[in-house]
Amino acid sequence: MPPFDRRVLLSSGLAAGAALATPASAASDAPVLFHQVFFWLKTPGAKADRDQLIAGLKALKGIEVIQQLHVGVPASTEKRDVVDNSYDVSELMVFKSVEDQKRYQDHPLHQKFVADCGHLWSKVVVYDSLSV
Amino acid sequence: MPPFDRRVLLSSGLAAGAALATPASAASDAPVLFHQVFFWLKTPGAKADRDQLIAGLKALKGIEVIQQLHVGVPASTEKRDVVDNSYDVSELMVFKSVEDQKRYQDHPLHQKFVADCGHLWSKVVVYDSLSV
Repeated sequence: MPPFDRRVLLSSGLAAGAALATPASAASDAPVLFHQVFFWLKTPGAKADRDQLIAGLKALKGIEVIQQLHVGVPASTEKRDVVDNSYDVSELMVFKSVEDQKRYQDHPLHQKFVADCGHLWSKVVVYDSLSV
Repeated sequence: MPPFDRRVLLSSGLAAGAALATPASAASDAPVLFHQVFFWLKTPGAKADRDQLIAGLKALKGIEVIQQLHVGVPASTEKRDVVDNSYDVSELMVFKSVEDQKRYQDHPLHQKFVADCGHLWSKVVVYDSLSV
């Protein structure tokens, strides 16, 4: 595959207005940390609880080390054995480094989120990935 | 929080050259699908297998419906009970819709990837999230 393919992909992502797009200038040799979190509500399907959790997560965007924040819910993709759609809310954050993720973890706004919303979930799973 | 905060966040993301950045023009009312996949190798820690899987995943970027593709490995974030760092390789794809994700699923290049690399992993977990 010729080397310009990546730029083409990125440009098309930008043009299409996709929610995530890599600036061409950042052709991303620098690794980036993806903090991917999945929440299962204590009361599965409770809309008010779900909405409170979503609002709480969105409020985290005030934390300066978060480069990107996206909150989601299970998509209606095809049911397959490998697809886990049992969670209620997902969170995807991008950090520049492991150190920034730690700063977020210890940040008062994050601590307040856990204090305010921690009673809503029964289970949470975190996957931290470094881009390669 | 004043309404310009989001723009500030996005701008700073772009300026910092983060690997993911939302174009300000796409202030993302349109939902976007995040396809998040975690692979556990049949031979955990086998570097050659890991590299083959990473290369196979990166080659998927030729599929036109993929808006963004990021491949990762576990980051060295703090060990906590909720953090699962037992996987070997992660994949994050962005699609414009559930339909596009289905087109990817059925695409010959994706089928070839599964045929070529499927023997490498013992477990795979997929989370498909629609942004809210």
